[in-house]
Amino acid sequence: MLYGAIEAGGTKFVCAVGNEKGELLEKAIIDTTTPEKTLEQIKTFYLGKDIVACGVGSFGPIDVNKESPTYGYIMNTPKIKWQKFNLLGELKKLLGVPLAFDSDVNVAAVGEKLLGAGRDVNSCLYMTIGTGIGAGLYVEGSTLSGLSHPEMGHILLKRHPEDSDFTGFCPFHGADCFEGLAAGPAIEKRWDKKGNELGVDHEAWRLEAYYIAQALMNYILIVSPEKIVLGGGVMKQKQLFPLIFDELIEKLNGYLDFPQLTRENISRYIVSPELGDEAGVKGALMTAVKML
Amino acid sequence: MLYGAIEAGGTKFVCAVGNEKGELLEKAIIDTTTPEKTLEQIKTFYLGKDIVACGVGSFGPIDVNKESPTYGYIMNTPKIKWQKFNLLGELKKLLGVPLAFDSDVNVAAVGEKLLGAGRDVNSCLYMTIGTGIGAGLYVEGSTLSGLSHPEMGHILLKRHPEDSDFTGFCPFHGADCFEGLAAGPAIEKRWDKKGNELGVDHEAWRLEAYYIAQALMNYILIVSPEKIVLGGGVMKQKQLFPLIFDELIEKLNGYLDFPQLTRENISRYIVSPELGDEAGVKGALMTAVKML
Ligand SMILES: Nc1ncnc2c1ncn2[C@@H]1O[C@H](COP(=O)(O)OP(=O)(O)O)[C@@H](O)[C@H]1O
Ligand SMILES: Nc1ncnc2c1ncn2[C@@H]1O[C@H](COP(=O)(O)OP(=O)(O)O)[C@@H](O)[C@H]1O
Ligand SMILES: [Zn+2]
Ligand SMILES: [Zn+2]
Repeated sequence: MLYGAIEAGGTKFVCAVGNEKGELLEKAIIDTTTPEKTLEQIKTFYLGKDIVACGVGSFGPIDVNKESPTYGYIMNTPKIKWQKFNLLGELKKLLGVPLAFDSDVNVAAVGEKLLGAGRDVNSCLYMTIGTGIGAGLYVEGSTLSGLSHPEMGHILLKRHPEDSDFTGFCPFHGADCFEGLAAGPAIEKRWDKKGNELGVDHEAWRLEAYYIAQALMNYILIVSPEKIVLGGGVMKQKQLFPLIFDELIEKLNGYLDFPQLTRENISRYIVSPELGDEAGVKGALMTAVKML
Repeated sequence: MLYGAIEAGGTKFVCAVGNEKGELLEKAIIDTTTPEKTLEQIKTFYLGKDIVACGVGSFGPIDVNKESPTYGYIMNTPKIKWQKFNLLGELKKLLGVPLAFDSDVNVAAVGEKLLGAGRDVNSCLYMTIGTGIGAGLYVEGSTLSGLSHPEMGHILLKRHPEDSDFTGFCPFHGADCFEGLAAGPAIEKRWDKKGNELGVDHEAWRLEAYYIAQALMNYILIVSPEKIVLGGGVMKQKQLFPLIFDELIEKLNGYLDFPQLTRENISRYIVSPELGDEAGVKGALMTAVKML
Protein backbone atom coordinates (compact mmCIF):
# COMPACT_ATOMS: atom_id res chain seq x y z
CA MET A 1 0.00 0.00 0.00
CA LEU A 2 1.09 3.57 -0.68
CA TYR A 3 0.85 6.52 1.67
CA GLY A 4 1.20 10.25 1.16
CA ALA A 5 3.42 12.53 3.23
CA ILE A 6 3.41 16.32 3.23
CA GLU A 7 5.79 18.57 5.10
CA ALA A 8 4.23 22.00 4.88
CA GLY A 9 6.87 24.67 5.46
CA GLY A 10 6.86 28.44 5.27
CA THR A 11 9.20 28.42 2.25
CA LYS A 12 8.49 25.03 0.69
CA PHE A 13 6.15 22.06 0.78
CA VAL A 14 7.77 18.63 0.52
CA CYS A 15 5.31 16.11 -0.93
CA ALA A 16 6.08 12.43 -1.09
CA VAL A 17 4.70 8.96 -1.59
CA GLY A 18 6.07 6.09 0.45
CA ASN A 19 5.41 2.72 1.99
CA GLU A 20 4.74 1.39 5.49
CA LYS A 21 8.44 0.79 6.09
CA GLY A 22 9.04 4.52 5.91
CA GLU A 23 10.70 4.39 2.51
CA LEU A 24 10.09 7.36 0.24
CA LEU A 25 9.39 6.27 -3.32
CA GLU A 26 8.80 9.63 -4.93
CA LYS A 27 9.26 13.19 -3.77
CA ALA A 28 8.55 16.70 -5.02
CA ILE A 29 9.39 20.12 -3.65
CA ILE A 30 6.84 22.85 -4.15
CA ASP A 31 7.38 26.52 -3.32
CA THR A 32 5.10 28.02 -0.71
CA THR A 33 3.37 30.82 -2.62
CA THR A 34 -0.37 31.41 -2.30
CA PRO A 35 -2.57 28.66 -0.86
CA GLU A 36 -4.36 28.32 -4.23
CA LYS A 37 -1.22 27.85 -6.32
CA THR A 38 0.52 25.64 -3.81
CA LEU A 39 -2.49 23.36 -3.43
CA GLU A 40 -2.92 23.15 -7.18
CA GLN A 41 0.64 21.81 -7.47
CA ILE A 42 0.07 19.37 -4.63
CA LYS A 43 -3.00 18.11 -6.45
CA THR A 44 -0.99 17.62 -9.62
CA PHE A 45 1.70 15.69 -7.76
CA TYR A 46 -0.74 13.23 -6.20
CA LEU A 47 -2.83 12.82 -9.35
CA GLY A 48 -3.08 9.12 -10.23
CA LYS A 49 -1.01 8.13 -7.20
CA ASP A 50 -2.98 5.54 -5.36
CA ILE A 51 -2.39 6.57 -1.73
CA VAL A 52 -4.65 5.22 1.03
CA ALA A 53 -3.90 7.92 3.62
CA CYS A 54 -1.72 10.98 4.02
CA GLY A 55 0.21 12.51 6.91
CA VAL A 56 0.70 16.26 7.14
CA GLY A 57 3.26 18.10 9.29
CA SER A 58 2.65 21.81 9.07
CA PHE A 59 4.33 25.07 9.97
CA GLY A 60 2.33 26.95 12.52
CA PRO A 61 0.88 27.91 14.74
CA ILE A 62 -1.80 25.42 13.76
CA ASP A 63 -4.95 24.34 15.53
CA VAL A 64 -4.60 20.67 16.51
CA ASN A 65 -7.59 20.54 18.83
CA LYS A 66 -10.04 18.13 17.21
CA GLU A 67 -12.97 19.70 19.03
CA SER A 68 -12.20 23.21 17.85
CA PRO A 69 -14.13 24.84 14.98
CA THR A 70 -10.78 25.82 13.44
CA TYR A 71 -9.22 22.35 13.76
CA GLY A 72 -6.68 21.89 10.97
CA TYR A 73 -6.31 25.62 10.29
CA ILE A 74 -3.08 27.56 10.15
CA MET A 75 -3.58 30.31 12.72
CA ASN A 76 -2.01 33.78 13.06
CA THR A 77 1.16 33.22 11.03
CA PRO A 78 3.13 36.20 9.73
CA LYS A 79 2.50 34.71 6.24
CA ILE A 80 -0.66 36.73 5.65
CA LYS A 81 -2.10 34.64 2.83
CA TRP A 82 -2.00 31.54 4.96
CA GLN A 83 -3.61 33.09 8.02
CA LYS A 84 -6.74 31.21 9.06
CA PHE A 85 -6.32 28.91 6.08
CA ASN A 86 -8.08 25.56 6.45
CA LEU A 87 -5.11 23.47 5.33
CA LEU A 88 -6.47 20.17 6.56
CA GLY A 89 -9.93 20.73 5.08
CA GLU A 90 -8.59 21.78 1.68
CA LEU A 91 -6.16 18.88 1.53
CA LYS A 92 -8.95 16.48 2.43
CA LYS A 93 -11.06 17.72 -0.47
CA LEU A 94 -8.10 17.50 -2.79
CA LEU A 95 -6.83 14.07 -1.82
CA GLY A 96 -10.00 12.29 -0.75
CA VAL A 97 -8.18 10.03 1.74
CA PRO A 98 -7.95 10.03 5.55
CA LEU A 99 -5.46 12.63 6.75
CA ALA A 100 -3.34 12.86 9.89
CA PHE A 101 -2.46 16.41 10.89
CA ASP A 102 0.21 17.66 13.30
CA SER A 103 2.90 20.31 13.69
CA ASP A 104 6.07 20.11 11.57
CA VAL A 105 8.26 19.44 14.61
CA ASN A 106 5.87 16.88 16.09
CA VAL A 107 6.03 14.83 12.88
CA ALA A 108 9.81 15.24 12.77
CA ALA A 109 9.85 13.77 16.29
CA VAL A 110 7.77 10.86 14.98
CA GLY A 111 10.24 10.35 12.12
CA GLU A 112 13.32 10.32 14.32
CA LYS A 113 11.59 8.18 16.93
CA LEU A 114 10.41 5.47 14.55
CA LEU A 115 13.10 5.48 11.88
CA GLY A 116 16.03 7.51 13.16
CA ALA A 117 17.95 8.37 16.30
CA GLY A 118 15.09 7.38 18.62
CA ARG A 119 14.53 3.91 17.14
CA ASP A 120 15.67 2.08 20.27
CA VAL A 121 13.95 4.18 22.94
CA ASN A 122 10.37 4.96 23.97
CA SER A 123 10.26 8.72 23.69
CA CYS A 124 11.99 11.32 21.61
CA LEU A 125 12.15 15.09 21.66
CA TYR A 126 13.02 16.73 18.36
CA MET A 127 14.09 20.36 18.34
CA THR A 128 15.02 22.57 15.41
CA ILE A 129 17.06 25.75 15.84
CA GLY A 130 16.80 27.70 12.61
CA THR A 131 14.79 30.75 11.63
CA GLY A 132 12.69 29.96 14.66
CA ILE A 133 12.97 27.42 17.45
CA GLY A 134 10.41 24.66 17.66
CA ALA A 135 10.22 21.27 19.29
CA GLY A 136 8.00 18.23 19.18
CA LEU A 137 7.71 15.23 21.44
CA TYR A 138 6.74 11.66 20.66
CA VAL A 139 5.98 9.57 23.70
CA GLU A 140 4.06 6.36 24.30
CA GLY A 141 2.84 6.03 20.76
CA SER A 142 1.72 9.57 20.09
CA THR A 143 2.85 13.16 19.89
CA LEU A 144 2.17 15.41 22.84
CA SER A 145 -0.58 17.91 22.58
CA GLY A 146 -3.09 19.50 24.90
CA LEU A 147 -4.45 23.01 24.50
CA SER A 148 -2.17 22.99 21.49
CA HIS A 149 1.01 21.45 20.17
CA PRO A 150 4.08 22.44 22.23
CA GLU A 151 5.56 25.89 21.68
CA MET A 152 8.82 25.13 23.39
CA GLY A 153 10.79 27.78 21.52
CA HIS A 154 9.29 30.57 23.60
CA ILE A 155 10.18 29.41 27.10
CA LEU A 156 11.68 32.06 29.34
CA LEU A 157 15.42 31.84 29.93
CA LYS A 158 17.86 33.56 32.19
CA ARG A 159 20.13 36.02 30.43
CA HIS A 160 23.86 35.33 30.23
CA PRO A 161 25.67 38.03 32.29
CA GLU A 162 27.75 39.04 29.26
CA ASP A 163 24.64 39.35 27.09
CA SER A 164 22.68 41.84 29.13
CA ASP A 165 22.50 44.55 26.46
CA PHE A 166 21.04 42.40 23.72
CA THR A 167 17.48 43.39 22.85
CA GLY A 168 16.55 40.04 21.33
CA PHE A 169 14.55 39.07 18.31
CA CYS A 170 11.21 37.70 19.47
CA PRO A 171 8.30 39.99 18.55
CA PHE A 172 6.44 38.77 21.65
CA HIS A 173 9.18 38.35 24.24
CA GLY A 174 12.18 40.32 22.99
CA ALA A 175 15.26 38.86 24.64
CA ASP A 176 13.32 37.04 27.37
CA CYS A 177 12.61 33.82 25.48
CA PHE A 178 14.77 31.10 23.94
CA GLU A 179 13.88 31.97 20.35
CA GLY A 180 14.47 35.67 20.95
CA LEU A 181 17.93 34.90 22.32
CA ALA A 182 19.16 31.98 20.28
CA ALA A 183 17.42 31.37 16.93
CA GLY A 184 19.38 32.09 13.75
CA PRO A 185 18.09 35.68 13.35
CA ALA A 186 19.00 36.47 16.98
CA ILE A 187 22.58 35.32 16.34
CA GLU A 188 22.70 37.46 13.22
CA LYS A 189 21.33 40.50 15.05
CA ARG A 190 23.74 40.13 17.96
CA TRP A 191 26.92 39.71 15.92
CA ASP A 192 25.96 41.49 12.70
CA LYS A 193 26.81 38.37 10.75
CA LYS A 194 24.98 35.21 9.84
CA GLY A 195 25.79 32.16 11.96
CA ASN A 196 27.55 30.38 9.13
CA GLU A 197 29.90 33.34 8.72
CA LEU A 198 31.13 33.24 12.33
CA GLY A 199 34.24 31.15 12.95
CA VAL A 200 33.91 27.94 14.97
CA ASP A 201 35.86 29.61 17.79
CA HIS A 202 33.68 32.70 17.91
CA GLU A 203 32.36 33.57 21.37
CA ALA A 204 28.86 33.42 19.89
CA TRP A 205 28.84 29.66 20.34
CA ARG A 206 29.57 29.78 24.04
CA LEU A 207 26.56 32.05 24.54
CA GLU A 208 24.47 29.91 22.23
CA ALA A 209 25.37 26.76 24.14
CA TYR A 210 24.50 28.51 27.40
CA TYR A 211 20.97 29.17 26.18
CA ILE A 212 20.47 25.79 24.53
CA ALA A 213 21.64 23.97 27.66
CA GLN A 214 19.27 25.98 29.83
CA ALA A 215 16.34 25.11 27.57
CA LEU A 216 17.31 21.44 27.41
CA MET A 217 17.58 21.25 31.17
CA ASN A 218 14.01 22.52 31.46
CA TYR A 219 12.74 20.14 28.78
CA ILE A 220 14.46 17.20 30.49
CA LEU A 221 13.02 18.11 33.89
CA ILE A 222 9.55 18.63 32.50
CA VAL A 223 9.07 15.86 29.94
CA SER A 224 12.04 13.57 30.57
CA PRO A 225 12.54 12.35 26.98
CA GLU A 226 14.65 9.25 26.37
CA LYS A 227 16.38 10.83 23.39
CA ILE A 228 16.90 14.42 22.26
CA VAL A 229 17.50 15.22 18.60
CA LEU A 230 18.78 18.69 17.69
CA GLY A 231 18.34 19.80 14.10
CA GLY A 232 18.00 23.00 12.06
CA GLY A 233 20.53 25.32 10.45
CA VAL A 234 22.20 26.57 13.63
CA MET A 235 22.92 23.02 14.82
CA LYS A 236 25.09 22.49 11.76
CA GLN A 237 27.72 24.13 13.97
CA LYS A 238 28.87 20.82 15.42
CA GLN A 239 31.24 22.51 17.89
CA LEU A 240 28.07 23.46 19.80
CA PHE A 241 27.52 19.90 21.00
CA PRO A 242 30.40 19.58 23.50
CA LEU A 243 29.76 23.12 24.74
CA ILE A 244 26.10 22.22 25.36
CA PHE A 245 27.07 18.99 27.13
CA ASP A 246 29.44 20.76 29.53
CA GLU A 247 26.93 23.49 30.33
CA LEU A 248 24.06 21.10 30.84
CA ILE A 249 25.97 18.79 33.15
CA GLU A 250 27.21 21.74 35.16
CA LYS A 251 23.68 23.13 35.47
CA LEU A 252 22.06 19.84 36.44
CA ASN A 253 24.75 19.53 39.09
CA GLY A 254 24.12 15.86 39.71
CA TYR A 255 20.42 16.26 40.31
CA LEU A 256 19.27 13.65 37.79
CA ASP A 257 21.07 10.42 38.38
CA PHE A 258 20.69 8.73 34.98
CA PRO A 259 23.42 6.97 33.04
CA GLN A 260 22.38 8.96 29.95
CA LEU A 261 23.39 12.20 31.63
CA THR A 262 27.03 11.48 32.40
CA ARG A 263 29.67 13.36 30.43
CA GLU A 264 30.70 10.02 28.95
CA ASN A 265 27.25 9.04 27.65
CA ILE A 266 25.53 12.31 26.94
CA SER A 267 26.72 12.46 23.32
CA ARG A 268 24.52 9.44 22.68
CA TYR A 269 21.58 11.06 24.45
CA ILE A 270 21.63 14.43 22.68
CA VAL A 271 22.30 13.85 19.00
CA SER A 272 21.94 15.15 15.45
CA PRO A 273 19.01 13.94 13.33
CA GLU A 274 19.73 10.61 11.67
CA LEU A 275 17.19 11.33 8.96
CA GLY A 276 18.81 14.68 8.15
CA ASP A 277 16.37 16.90 6.28
CA GLU A 278 13.91 14.03 5.85
CA ALA A 279 12.81 13.70 9.50
CA GLY A 280 9.68 15.74 8.80
CA VAL A 281 8.50 14.09 5.60
CA LYS A 282 9.33 10.58 6.84
CA GLY A 283 7.56 11.32 10.10
CA ALA A 284 4.52 12.53 8.16
CA LEU A 285 4.61 9.27 6.22
CA MET A 286 4.70 7.18 9.40
CA THR A 287 1.87 9.23 10.88
CA ALA A 288 -0.24 8.22 7.89
CA VAL A 289 0.82 4.57 8.22
CA LYS A 290 -0.02 4.55 11.93
CA MET A 291 -3.49 6.02 11.47
CA LEU A 292 -4.84 3.08 9.43
CA MET B 1 -14.91 -4.79 43.88
CA LEU B 2 -12.53 -3.13 46.31
CA TYR B 3 -9.25 -1.46 45.50
CA GLY B 4 -6.35 -0.30 47.65
CA ALA B 5 -4.76 3.15 47.48
CA ILE B 6 -1.52 4.23 49.11
CA GLU B 7 -0.10 7.73 49.14
CA ALA B 8 3.44 7.30 50.38
CA GLY B 9 4.75 10.58 51.77
CA GLY B 10 7.91 11.58 53.56
CA THR B 11 6.04 12.28 56.81
CA LYS B 12 2.99 10.02 56.49
CA PHE B 13 1.49 7.20 54.46
CA VAL B 14 -2.19 7.46 53.65
CA CYS B 15 -3.71 4.02 53.13
CA ALA B 16 -7.24 3.54 51.88
CA VAL B 17 -9.75 1.15 50.43
CA GLY B 18 -12.22 2.34 47.84
CA ASN B 19 -14.37 1.47 44.88
CA GLU B 20 -14.20 2.00 41.11
CA LYS B 21 -16.17 5.24 41.39
CA GLY B 22 -13.29 6.78 43.32
CA GLU B 23 -15.09 6.70 46.65
CA LEU B 24 -12.94 6.06 49.71
CA LEU B 25 -14.60 3.61 52.10
CA GLU B 26 -11.92 3.40 54.76
CA LYS B 27 -8.74 5.34 55.41
CA ALA B 28 -5.78 5.21 57.80
CA ILE B 29 -2.83 7.52 58.33
CA ILE B 30 0.48 5.91 59.23
CA ASP B 31 3.61 7.79 60.25
CA THR B 32 6.62 7.40 58.00
CA THR B 33 9.23 5.93 60.35
CA THR B 34 11.43 3.04 59.27
CA PRO B 35 10.46 0.98 56.24
CA GLU B 36 9.99 -2.11 58.47
CA LYS B 37 7.63 -0.45 60.96
CA THR B 38 5.69 1.46 58.34
CA LEU B 39 5.16 -1.60 56.18
CA GLU B 40 4.09 -3.65 59.19
CA GLN B 41 1.33 -1.12 59.86
CA ILE B 42 0.28 -1.09 56.21
CA LYS B 43 0.02 -4.87 56.38
CA THR B 44 -2.19 -4.66 59.47
CA PHE B 45 -4.46 -2.11 57.78
CA TYR B 46 -5.06 -4.25 54.70
CA LEU B 47 -5.42 -7.52 56.62
CA GLY B 48 -8.70 -9.18 55.70
CA LYS B 49 -9.59 -6.40 53.25
CA ASP B 50 -10.42 -8.04 50.01
CA ILE B 51 -8.76 -5.68 47.52
CA VAL B 52 -8.15 -6.83 43.94
CA ALA B 53 -5.42 -4.30 43.09
CA CYS B 54 -3.64 -1.37 44.69
CA GLY B 55 -2.34 1.96 43.40
CA VAL B 56 0.72 3.58 44.95
CA GLY B 57 1.80 7.21 44.63
CA SER B 58 5.17 7.68 46.25
CA PHE B 59 7.49 10.46 47.36
CA GLY B 60 10.71 10.37 45.41
CA PRO B 61 12.78 10.39 43.51
CA ILE B 62 11.54 6.96 42.52
CA ASP B 63 12.49 4.69 39.66
CA VAL B 64 9.48 4.36 37.34
CA ASN B 65 11.32 2.76 34.42
CA LYS B 66 9.87 -0.73 34.10
CA GLU B 67 12.99 -2.01 32.39
CA SER B 68 15.32 -0.84 35.13
CA PRO B 69 16.73 -3.24 37.76
CA THR B 70 15.68 -0.76 40.44
CA TYR B 71 12.11 -0.28 39.11
CA GLY B 72 9.83 0.54 42.03
CA TYR B 73 12.67 1.67 44.31
CA ILE B 74 12.88 4.94 46.18
CA MET B 75 16.18 6.39 45.01
CA ASN B 76 18.55 8.88 46.67
CA THR B 77 16.13 10.58 49.06
CA PRO B 78 17.45 12.57 52.02
CA LYS B 79 15.44 10.12 54.19
CA ILE B 80 18.39 7.76 54.66
CA LYS B 81 16.43 4.70 55.79
CA TRP B 82 14.34 4.79 52.64
CA GLN B 83 17.24 5.17 50.24
CA LYS B 84 17.28 2.39 47.65
CA PHE B 85 14.27 0.81 49.33
CA ASN B 86 12.29 -1.51 47.08
CA LEU B 87 8.90 -0.07 47.98
CA LEU B 88 7.02 -1.66 45.10
CA GLY B 89 8.59 -5.09 45.64
CA GLU B 90 7.92 -5.11 49.38
CA LEU B 91 4.33 -3.93 48.96
CA LYS B 92 3.77 -6.63 46.36
CA LYS B 93 4.92 -9.32 48.79
CA LEU B 94 2.78 -7.85 51.52
CA LEU B 95 -0.44 -7.34 49.57
CA GLY B 96 -0.28 -10.11 46.99
CA VAL B 97 -2.29 -8.16 44.41
CA PRO B 98 -1.31 -6.31 41.21
CA LEU B 99 0.18 -2.91 42.00
CA ALA B 100 0.36 0.31 40.00
CA PHE B 101 3.30 2.53 40.92
CA ASP B 102 3.89 6.21 40.15
CA SER B 103 5.11 9.44 41.71
CA ASP B 104 2.94 11.18 44.33
CA VAL B 105 2.31 14.16 42.07
CA ASN B 106 1.56 12.04 39.02
CA VAL B 107 -1.17 10.18 40.93
CA ALA B 108 -2.49 13.48 42.27
CA ALA B 109 -2.74 14.61 38.64
CA VAL B 110 -4.72 11.43 37.92
CA GLY B 111 -7.03 12.15 40.84
CA GLU B 112 -7.76 15.73 39.83
CA LYS B 113 -8.10 14.76 36.17
CA LEU B 114 -10.58 11.94 36.72
CA LEU B 115 -12.49 13.09 39.78
CA GLY B 116 -11.66 16.75 40.39
CA ALA B 117 -10.85 19.98 38.61
CA GLY B 118 -9.81 18.25 35.38
CA ARG B 119 -12.96 16.14 34.99
CA ASP B 120 -14.10 17.92 31.85
CA VAL B 121 -10.81 18.21 29.98
CA ASN B 122 -8.30 15.84 28.40
CA SER B 123 -5.12 16.70 30.24
CA CYS B 124 -4.25 18.03 33.64
CA LEU B 125 -1.08 19.27 35.28
CA TYR B 126 -1.01 19.06 39.06
CA MET B 127 1.63 21.01 40.96
CA THR B 128 2.27 21.18 44.67
CA ILE B 129 4.23 24.02 46.26
CA GLY B 130 5.09 22.96 49.78
CA THR B 131 8.28 21.68 51.39
CA GLY B 132 9.39 20.98 47.85
CA ILE B 133 7.90 21.70 44.45
CA GLY B 134 6.70 18.81 42.33
CA ALA B 135 4.36 18.37 39.42
CA GLY B 136 2.70 15.57 37.56
CA LEU B 137 0.90 15.42 34.25
CA TYR B 138 -1.95 13.22 33.09
CA VAL B 139 -2.53 13.29 29.37
CA GLU B 140 -4.27 10.97 26.92
CA GLY B 141 -5.05 8.33 29.48
CA SER B 142 -1.72 8.10 31.26
CA THR B 143 0.80 10.01 33.31
CA LEU B 144 3.85 11.35 31.56
CA SER B 145 7.12 9.60 32.09
CA GLY B 146 10.23 8.94 30.08
CA LEU B 147 13.71 8.61 31.53
CA SER B 148 11.84 9.26 34.74
CA HIS B 149 8.75 10.96 36.11
CA PRO B 150 8.87 14.74 35.66
CA GLU B 151 11.02 16.76 38.03
CA MET B 152 9.44 20.07 37.18
CA GLY B 153 10.33 21.69 40.50
CA HIS B 154 13.94 22.14 39.50
CA ILE B 155 13.58 24.06 36.27
CA LEU B 156 15.84 27.08 35.94
CA LEU B 157 14.21 30.47 36.41
CA LYS B 158 15.24 34.03 35.93
CA ARG B 159 15.85 35.93 39.16
CA HIS B 160 13.59 38.81 40.10
CA PRO B 161 15.71 42.00 40.01
CA GLU B 162 14.81 42.78 43.65
CA ASP B 163 15.79 39.27 44.75
CA SER B 164 19.37 39.20 43.52
CA ASP B 165 20.98 38.65 46.92
CA PHE B 166 18.99 35.61 47.92
CA THR B 167 21.13 32.47 48.05
CA GLY B 168 18.24 30.05 47.63
CA PHE B 169 17.40 26.76 49.22
CA CYS B 170 18.02 24.01 46.67
CA PRO B 171 20.97 21.80 47.62
CA PHE B 172 21.63 21.21 43.91
CA HIS B 173 20.84 24.54 42.30
CA GLY B 174 20.85 27.13 45.09
CA ALA B 175 18.73 30.05 43.92
CA ASP B 176 18.81 29.06 40.25
CA CYS B 177 15.83 26.72 40.26
CA PHE B 178 12.13 27.11 41.02
CA GLU B 179 12.22 25.03 44.21
CA GLY B 180 15.30 26.87 45.46
CA LEU B 181 13.52 30.18 44.97
CA ALA B 182 9.90 29.50 45.78
CA ALA B 183 9.18 26.40 47.88
CA GLY B 184 8.04 26.89 51.49
CA PRO B 185 11.54 26.67 53.00
CA ALA B 186 12.88 29.24 50.52
CA ILE B 187 10.15 31.68 51.58
CA GLU B 188 11.03 31.05 55.21
CA LYS B 189 14.75 31.54 54.57
CA ARG B 190 14.23 34.76 52.62
CA TRP B 191 11.90 36.46 55.10
CA ASP B 192 12.91 34.76 58.33
CA LYS B 193 9.31 33.75 58.91
CA LYS B 194 7.14 30.89 57.78
CA GLY B 195 4.80 31.60 54.87
CA ASN B 196 1.71 31.38 57.02
CA GLU B 197 3.11 34.07 59.35
CA LEU B 198 3.51 36.64 56.58
CA GLY B 199 0.56 38.97 56.03
CA VAL B 200 -1.45 38.64 52.85
CA ASP B 201 -0.07 42.01 51.71
CA HIS B 202 3.57 41.10 52.32
CA GLU B 203 5.86 41.73 49.36
CA ALA B 204 6.82 38.05 49.55
CA TRP B 205 3.76 37.14 47.53
CA ARG B 206 4.61 39.41 44.62
CA LEU B 207 7.99 37.70 44.32
CA GLU B 208 6.40 34.30 44.76
CA ALA B 209 3.87 34.98 42.02
CA TYR B 210 6.68 36.16 39.74
CA TYR B 211 8.42 32.80 40.04
CA ILE B 212 5.28 30.68 39.85
CA ALA B 213 4.11 32.53 36.72
CA GLN B 214 7.50 32.02 35.07
CA ALA B 215 7.36 28.29 35.77
CA LEU B 216 3.76 27.99 34.60
CA MET B 217 4.57 29.80 31.38
CA ASN B 218 7.27 27.25 30.66
CA TYR B 219 5.01 24.32 31.54
CA ILE B 220 2.26 25.68 29.30
CA LEU B 221 4.64 26.20 26.39
CA ILE B 222 6.19 22.77 26.80
CA VAL B 223 3.30 20.46 27.67
CA SER B 224 0.23 22.61 26.98
CA PRO B 225 -2.07 21.11 29.66
CA GLU B 226 -5.79 21.77 29.44
CA LYS B 227 -6.06 22.42 33.16
CA ILE B 228 -3.54 23.42 35.84
CA VAL B 229 -4.17 22.57 39.48
CA LEU B 230 -2.03 24.27 42.12
CA GLY B 231 -1.90 22.63 45.55
CA GLY B 232 0.40 22.40 48.57
CA GLY B 233 0.81 24.52 51.69
CA VAL B 234 2.07 27.68 49.99
CA MET B 235 -0.93 27.78 47.65
CA LYS B 236 -3.21 28.16 50.65
CA GLN B 237 -2.33 31.83 50.24
CA LYS B 238 -5.23 32.51 47.89
CA GLN B 239 -4.10 36.08 47.21
CA LEU B 240 -1.36 34.47 45.07
CA PHE B 241 -3.81 33.50 42.34
CA PRO B 242 -4.63 36.95 40.90
CA LEU B 243 -0.96 37.95 41.19
CA ILE B 244 0.02 34.85 39.21
CA PHE B 245 -2.64 35.51 36.59
CA ASP B 246 -1.46 39.08 36.00
CA GLU B 247 2.19 38.07 35.76
CA LEU B 248 1.54 35.15 33.46
CA ILE B 249 -0.61 37.12 31.05
CA GLU B 250 1.95 39.90 30.98
CA LYS B 251 4.77 37.42 30.28
CA LEU B 252 2.94 35.51 27.55
CA ASN B 253 2.26 38.88 25.95
CA GLY B 254 -0.42 37.54 23.65
CA TYR B 255 1.71 34.76 22.23
CA LEU B 256 -0.74 31.94 22.92
CA ASP B 257 -4.11 32.81 21.55
CA PHE B 258 -6.37 30.52 23.60
CA PRO B 259 -9.62 31.51 25.28
CA GLN B 260 -8.36 29.84 28.49
CA LEU B 261 -5.55 32.37 28.75
CA THR B 262 -7.51 35.59 28.82
CA ARG B 263 -7.63 37.54 32.07
CA GLU B 264 -11.35 36.82 32.19
CA ASN B 265 -11.09 33.04 31.88
CA ILE B 266 -7.73 32.19 33.40
CA SER B 267 -9.16 31.69 36.90
CA ARG B 268 -10.99 28.66 35.51
CA TYR B 269 -7.80 27.37 33.84
CA ILE B 270 -5.46 27.63 36.84
CA VAL B 271 -7.30 26.44 39.92
CA SER B 272 -7.06 24.97 43.43
CA PRO B 273 -7.42 21.21 43.88
CA GLU B 274 -11.06 20.13 44.07
CA LEU B 275 -10.12 17.02 45.97
CA GLY B 276 -8.20 19.02 48.58
CA ASP B 277 -5.78 16.78 50.42
CA GLU B 278 -7.27 13.67 48.85
CA ALA B 279 -6.05 14.20 45.28
CA GLY B 280 -3.14 11.81 45.87
CA VAL B 281 -4.95 8.97 47.56
CA LYS B 282 -7.95 9.17 45.23
CA GLY B 283 -5.62 9.28 42.23
CA ALA B 284 -3.83 6.20 43.57
CA LEU B 285 -7.21 4.49 43.85
CA MET B 286 -8.13 5.33 40.25
CA THR B 287 -4.72 4.13 39.07
CA ALA B 288 -5.53 0.76 40.60
CA VAL B 289 -9.00 0.74 39.04
CA LYS B 290 -7.59 1.62 35.61
CA MET B 291 -4.97 -1.12 35.67
CA LEU B 292 -7.46 -3.98 35.75
N1 LIG C 1 25.73 26.38 8.94
C1 LIG C 1 25.06 27.26 9.68
N2 LIG C 1 25.60 27.78 10.80
C2 LIG C 1 24.95 28.65 11.57
N3 LIG C 1 23.72 29.10 11.29
C3 LIG C 1 23.11 28.62 10.19
C4 LIG C 1 23.73 27.68 9.35
N4 LIG C 1 22.86 27.39 8.35
C5 LIG C 1 21.76 28.12 8.57
N5 LIG C 1 21.90 28.86 9.68
C6 LIG C 1 20.92 29.81 10.24
O1 LIG C 1 19.71 29.09 10.51
C7 LIG C 1 18.58 29.83 10.05
C8 LIG C 1 17.84 29.01 9.00
O2 LIG C 1 17.47 27.80 9.58
P1 LIG C 1 17.07 26.51 8.77
O3 LIG C 1 16.88 25.41 9.73
O4 LIG C 1 18.11 26.30 7.70
O5 LIG C 1 15.72 26.89 8.04
P2 LIG C 1 14.24 27.13 8.63
O6 LIG C 1 14.30 27.24 10.11
O7 LIG C 1 13.80 28.41 7.98
O8 LIG C 1 13.49 25.93 8.17
C9 LIG C 1 19.11 31.16 9.53
O9 LIG C 1 18.97 32.14 10.54
C10 LIG C 1 20.57 30.87 9.23
O10 LIG C 1 21.39 32.03 9.41
N1 LIG D 1 -0.97 28.59 54.94
C1 LIG D 1 0.28 28.59 54.50
N2 LIG D 1 0.81 29.70 53.93
C2 LIG D 1 2.06 29.72 53.47
N3 LIG D 1 2.89 28.70 53.54
C3 LIG D 1 2.44 27.56 54.08
C4 LIG D 1 1.13 27.44 54.59
N4 LIG D 1 0.97 26.19 55.06
C5 LIG D 1 2.14 25.56 54.86
N5 LIG D 1 3.04 26.37 54.27
C6 LIG D 1 4.42 26.05 53.93
O1 LIG D 1 4.41 24.93 53.05
C7 LIG D 1 5.39 23.99 53.43
C8 LIG D 1 4.72 22.65 53.75
O2 LIG D 1 4.01 22.24 52.62
P1 LIG D 1 2.84 21.17 52.66
O3 LIG D 1 2.27 21.11 51.28
O4 LIG D 1 1.92 21.53 53.76
O5 LIG D 1 3.56 19.82 53.04
P2 LIG D 1 4.57 18.88 52.22
O6 LIG D 1 5.06 19.60 51.00
O7 LIG D 1 5.66 18.58 53.17
O8 LIG D 1 3.73 17.69 51.86
C9 LIG D 1 6.15 24.58 54.60
O9 LIG D 1 7.34 25.18 54.11
C10 LIG D 1 5.18 25.62 55.13
O10 LIG D 1 5.86 26.72 55.72
ZN1 LIG E 1 9.22 34.43 22.28
ZN1 LIG F 1 16.88 22.61 42.28
